[in-house]
Amino acid sequence: MASIPRELVDLLGADAVVAPDGDLSAWEAGVRGDRGDAAFVLRPADTDAVAAAVGCCVRHGIPFVPQSGNTGLVGGSTPDASADQAVLSVERLNRVCEIDVDNRSVRVGAGMRLSELNARLEREGLCFPVDLGADPMVGGMVATNTGGARFLRYGDVRANTLGLTVVLPDAEGTVLRLDQALRKDNTGPDWKQLFIGTSGAFGIVTECVLNVEPLPRERATAILVPRDEAAIFDLLRRLETRLGADLSAFEFMSGNAMRHALAHAPSVRNPFSDEAIPPIALLVEIARTAPAGEGEATLAEVLERTLADLWEAADEPLSDALFGPPEELWPLRHALSEGVKHAGRLFAFDLAFARTDVMRFRASMTERLATDWPELEVCDFGHVGDGGIHFNLVCHDRERCQSAGYEQALRDAVVQHAVEDFGGSFSGEHAIGRANQRYYDRYTPDVLKTLADRFSEALGLQATGAARFGHDGTDEQ
Amino acid sequence: MASIPRELVDLLGADAVVAPDGDLSAWEAGVRGDRGDAAFVLRPADTDAVAAAVGCCVRHGIPFVPQSGNTGLVGGSTPDASADQAVLSVERLNRVCEIDVDNRSVRVGAGMRLSELNARLEREGLCFPVDLGADPMVGGMVATNTGGARFLRYGDVRANTLGLTVVLPDAEGTVLRLDQALRKDNTGPDWKQLFIGTSGAFGIVTECVLNVEPLPRERATAILVPRDEAAIFDLLRRLETRLGADLSAFEFMSGNAMRHALAHAPSVRNPFSDEAIPPIALLVEIARTAPAGEGEATLAEVLERTLADLWEAADEPLSDALFGPPEELWPLRHALSEGVKHAGRLFAFDLAFARTDVMRFRASMTERLATDWPELEVCDFGHVGDGGIHFNLVCHDRERCQSAGYEQALRDAVVQHAVEDFGGSFSGEHAIGRANQRYYDRYTPDVLKTLADRFSEALGLQATGAARFGHDGTDEQ
Repeated sequence: MASIPRELVDLLGADAVVAPDGDLSAWEAGVRGDRGDAAFVLRPADTDAVAAAVGCCVRHGIPFVPQSGNTGLVGGSTPDASADQAVLSVERLNRVCEIDVDNRSVRVGAGMRLSELNARLEREGLCFPVDLGADPMVGGMVATNTGGARFLRYGDVRANTLGLTVVLPDAEGTVLRLDQALRKDNTGPDWKQLFIGTSGAFGIVTECVLNVEPLPRERATAILVPRDEAAIFDLLRRLETRLGADLSAFEFMSGNAMRHALAHAPSVRNPFSDEAIPPIALLVEIARTAPAGEGEATLAEVLERTLADLWEAADEPLSDALFGPPEELWPLRHALSEGVKHAGRLFAFDLAFARTDVMRFRASMTERLATDWPELEVCDFGHVGDGGIHFNLVCHDRERCQSAGYEQALRDAVVQHAVEDFGGSFSGEHAIGRANQRYYDRYTPDVLKTLADRFSEALGLQATGAARFGHDGTDEQ
Repeated sequence: MASIPRELVDLLGADAVVAPDGDLSAWEAGVRGDRGDAAFVLRPADTDAVAAAVGCCVRHGIPFVPQSGNTGLVGGSTPDASADQAVLSVERLNRVCEIDVDNRSVRVGAGMRLSELNARLEREGLCFPVDLGADPMVGGMVATNTGGARFLRYGDVRANTLGLTVVLPDAEGTVLRLDQALRKDNTGPDWKQLFIGTSGAFGIVTECVLNVEPLPRERATAILVPRDEAAIFDLLRRLETRLGADLSAFEFMSGNAMRHALAHAPSVRNPFSDEAIPPIALLVEIARTAPAGEGEATLAEVLERTLADLWEAADEPLSDALFGPPEELWPLRHALSEGVKHAGRLFAFDLAFARTDVMRFRASMTERLATDWPELEVCDFGHVGDGGIHFNLVCHDRERCQSAGYEQALRDAVVQHAVEDFGGSFSGEHAIGRANQRYYDRYTPDVLKTLADRFSEALGLQATGAARFGHDGTDEQ
């Protein structure tokens, strides 16, 4: 185990360093069962302290993993089992929160929770529109480039990042201030892009300038049962054309996932006629920033009218349409994740495709699984409006799925089919981390690995984070 | 003058090489008076041919400037006066145009004109939403990261780029295929970002996968006269809150610019009461992808109702509001650029600020000019909804403004005030090119120049394009 350099304690103060004889468990365990062993934990409280900490670690050859809210799903924020890695937590960088109402932007510390940020923005009639089930800190959201349920309307974190302050993992802890609150700026390469979605491997985000949006004031939702899988993107295309940017979510739910959610969460209402769960359903939401004025149609009326047109369309794309207020319909969607977790041993995949390929992949993979892995049940759901799908597999033969090599073989087979046969992404919105390193190593063209190698070398960067970009991966194919 | 390597003609075919004894003028002159002297012109017709051309140029040590539609405003696409540089035109890469309606994306060659792309998309009810006065080719739009009049609603080219194919300027003409048609993909560093807005300096874009949007089917416009400058962003904030994403343009027009436009273009209607031009006005547009249904308010009605509320607001932010259909009101906005060009010798600046700073800068700079450059008239206009302003100065003392050092001193003073005193950008949407190289050299922190140097060195890149990122600039401050 690495000892804590005296210099580090002098630089940061004793309260910013948690020694291994303290309780480090909160920083060592992630939410998907990833659990490591940290050498020690650093909790600097501002950018300068992060720079001092990083420089010192690099000079002493101590590897470290930046950690934000530690809500990530790919082992990107936890140390490995070696007990050699320090954890550098940005949790104390939560004081800066400067809202600029007229610029519709906020300057915020990397350690601010999304919920806290939104609570403060709400007082100004604003919100940060990247909407997630978890409650991460914004530094980690940038490092992961999170998407979420309203990607269709607002895009990902990248699309909403105006500026970043970053500490490079070099011997000086160089601070890059790419932090102007400008919406347009074409005065050179946009270097901040390399620190978005790269799990802290190239630098530690300490402060962000984010675009914020007017708070939606009216929402309307419906659950649609499409005629069949082929009708899904036909429905999406028509809704996008009819509703434009008012369409804020278009979520896919498989019958299996809905069944487990309803079984696990009895308080969630079954919205279907006779409670008969269809094989696939869609949750559609429209939203506006101002409620309907006098004499104007409410959003619920707009949605009903739109769906009535679809209902009467000659090609009959809908086989059912169920209206209900958002607070009645979203709970089913939100219960899917916990529901499938409790249904059996879960193997989760965060895949993305060109929209048209999502259902083609799903059909093909389901067929393959039925042959080779009959113990698995496809319980998927996802943000299909942007091509993303959480392709979840629940195993009902616990013994078999715990056998040696089972999980790796399964993961390899699913990712291979998605990437090689459908041009898909093996990580739509969860980034790389340790969990996806194998597939970065396997599917990244050599020319891009070389680019990453040389970029890191040229910058004198010490490898950091739980993701490694370049040729130093550990894939043993 | 460089001779044309035999190898190059063999590789590309004689029809792809225009020798200096031919007429090269179309490739040598830009639209803002930048005029160079090309060694020769290369017109490869696909990515492989671009790669062959680039590799051959690099191996023979022939510098070259990539050129697309040659409509840029910063001398980014024309050769210098040395007659040493070849022009590598992508104009023949205009055959690929694969529209994916369900994915709302298009794969398009770098040489396709925006107008042609939109004509093809329109047949599918779609459009590429980055809306410009000029008619560039898409490769140049990516290299410039263009913004335009509907940035507020749709963002810039970066926000609408899903994938790129890029040829690196190395001895092999390495092709990077970063071209998957995915909306979400977090499987490593997003390298394509470095080729957006960098004027071809790091690589030549040959093919793009772009997001496309449903074609707006209904628009409504009004010209607003705000109470004063302070009311502008108050109006914007209220309109954004009320109208959300329906607000598609919020354009600022100065009285001086409007006066010159109306004088130069007599066919353009003066919309103001008694034809009295106010000191400042705003053009506001809202748009929807579907026309109002039966019983729904038309957009014109929505806009009138919204403005009526503002009209009655206690703080009286509006002093006038003029309604008219888009085809009557946009011509004034579109006539501004030509109008100021004809009013006298023009010095144009493409500045951007945090939105709140636009009018503060304008007031302060106008005051400075009145003292030190009284021969200049501020004839500005711009996309203030996103913080951009085309800060145009018209000189009425032709002799003085042609005196030695005048232009440079003026440009330095304006840029200095914008960047140093207001944290602004000296290039909001026109990129670097030769025209802004001086300010890149002056205002880019050393750490970012080093980043660019090392990135280029590490890749073995030969300097290309008319923009140079790193420490090799030519600023002589």
